Amino acid sequence: MSSEATEERVLEAIAARRELVNDALDDDVPMGSPERLYEATRYLLKAGGKRLRPTVSLLTAEALADVEPLSADYRAFPALDGTEIDVMSAATSIEVIQSFTLIHDDIMDDDDLRRGVPAVHKEYDTETAILAGDTLYAKAFELLSETGADPANGLEAVRRLATTCTQICEGQALDIEFERRTEVLPEEYLEMIELKTAVLYGTATATAATLMGADDDVVEALYRYGIDSGRAFQIQDDVLDLTVSSEQLGKQRGSDLVENKETLITLHARQQGVDVDGLVETDDVDDVSEAEIEAAVERLEAAGSIEYAEQKAEELTARAKEHLDVLPDNEARDLLADIADYLITRGY
Amino acid sequence: MSSEATEERVLEAIAARRELVNDALDDDVPMGSPERLYEATRYLLKAGGKRLRPTVSLLTAEALADVEPLSADYRAFPALDGTEIDVMSAATSIEVIQSFTLIHDDIMDDDDLRRGVPAVHKEYDTETAILAGDTLYAKAFELLSETGADPANGLEAVRRLATTCTQICEGQALDIEFERRTEVLPEEYLEMIELKTAVLYGTATATAATLMGADDDVVEALYRYGIDSGRAFQIQDDVLDLTVSSEQLGKQRGSDLVENKETLITLHARQQGVDVDGLVETDDVDDVSEAEIEAAVERLEAAGSIEYAEQKAEELTARAKEHLDVLPDNEARDLLADIADYLITRGY
Repeated sequence: MSSEATEERVLEAIAARRELVNDALDDDVPMGSPERLYEATRYLLKAGGKRLRPTVSLLTAEALADVEPLSADYRAFPALDGTEIDVMSAATSIEVIQSFTLIHDDIMDDDDLRRGVPAVHKEYDTETAILAGDTLYAKAFELLSETGADPANGLEAVRRLATTCTQICEGQALDIEFERRTEVLPEEYLEMIELKTAVLYGTATATAATLMGADDDVVEALYRYGIDSGRAFQIQDDVLDLTVSSEQLGKQRGSDLVENKETLITLHARQQGVDVDGLVETDDVDDVSEAEIEAAVERLEAAGSIEYAEQKAEELTARAKEHLDVLPDNEARDLLADIADYLITRGY
Repeated sequence: MSSEATEERVLEAIAARRELVNDALDDDVPMGSPERLYEATRYLLKAGGKRLRPTVSLLTAEALADVEPLSADYRAFPALDGTEIDVMSAATSIEVIQSFTLIHDDIMDDDDLRRGVPAVHKEYDTETAILAGDTLYAKAFELLSETGADPANGLEAVRRLATTCTQICEGQALDIEFERRTEVLPEEYLEMIELKTAVLYGTATATAATLMGADDDVVEALYRYGIDSGRAFQIQDDVLDLTVSSEQLGKQRGSDLVENKETLITLHARQQGVDVDGLVETDDVDDVSEAEIEAAVERLEAAGSIEYAEQKAEELTARAKEHLDVLPDNEARDLLADIADYLITRGY
């Protein structure tokens, strides 16, 4: 991304769609009975979120339709065959899946907080949280089956979403397995984040493209855009944890190191012979000192590990943007490219 | 059911399809990586089960196609429009959903055993069990999206399965809520078992009919067949718990009473003024005496509660069989009727 003006434009594009997605989620995941179940189902969705995945879904549709961004009704959007489809439902279905995975992940990891509020299993209970996740899971497939798109495309979108959900489960299972293992290779880590995080980005773009009626090679290229920028996004998250102040992060800088969470950075450092486990002695984020974190970051910098991760994220982003060549040259395509840049230049 | 010969014919029909379904499940839910996740995913499926739901799916297809039972390849089955569809995948997708719900239910209820083996969260751990359920959930939608049926029918089947999964979650949430409530009405109980159990029977028949290309009114009637016989099945389960010996049941007779589980029988008895909570003082199935159970059953019989449940199950079964009138008059249809009877005449 070249300038602050571009970053501002990206943030505006995301914010405008976030508002529309939030309204749509309120309609697409309505209250129901039993009340407690449905309250839990809506709880995390209402707690906020950047809505990046639905945003790239919507932008993909706009780029393919070659329309002025935000000019067409997402609920009656012009598909390539001239019919109208509900591309917003496709976008919300992705966010609904994301929400289900976060609820179940928080149970598995016994995390207390999510998006600044208690995790669903803490605010309600584990039984309700399991069921809330399961309810959202079904809701996503329901939404995706009712977009009004050509049925063959609708069914293909369902098939991809199902495969993606399987991969997310595999990624989470690997993540749990890695915590119990003594050695994890950087390539294994990259595979894990591809499964756990990036495939849903890929599916966000591919699903919109499939429902729009795009050709298979276009769908595949847009899928790769999502995968590559999604991986870059996750790596950047790991970089930010070390390079941004606690104040900006909204949580303790270096918390990944304190909690012994492996990242591409620590895995690279291990390969360089750094005693990663000894970098931070404190194992409670409330007790760690800024000086201890600073010393650890200096060691990782000296080993070239932070730079290694940053380079990896940049490479992936460059590749992601190349895949956008399949799209018509228009503002929505430019925004998708700028979003990919933003994901690795953002400060928090 | 009129005779032992009919019962034998039903059991043979179920057994023949169970074997085919078991082979198909082995193919449709294959091993994958990470190994531990996929082992957990297959664990409960391999532990057995009657496979009643896939059996009614397959018989529905056979009745509609008007073919000799077991004469056509379920993987290349003649749909009503002359094309071939994989009706076995539709059948296994239903069993896969059933398996996912059992795994998650067992976590929520903290049950130790299922189908005679440790529950998945006991054999593995809760994290793996949540993920195994989530993986099966995705697998079911994947299977249903790849039957080769007309895409509009495929998408409609997906939509129904998604709605059904939502209802199963609602039913389980109600079940949990009822345990915490002081009063539950029999109608509320009936609604709960419809959601928690019967809708998946309805979906087993309706999905097969939809994929075969049956008219909407035929699909709807077959859905009602499944719902009504599924509800009768659940009520009969509650009757059997009281009327069959521990030896035949494979578990303590009257265990529902010992564990204070509400059923249509206890709810009816309460309305008749019976002190249901005082029927069995012992609250451990290992400590209860046969005499205590026998006395409780006599009280419930005197209140007409067991007869009430039996009559309800018979009414539902009669109604279920009427719905089969939409099918051609053939052997598969007769078997579906006989299965409905079997569900409430079976001794265990």
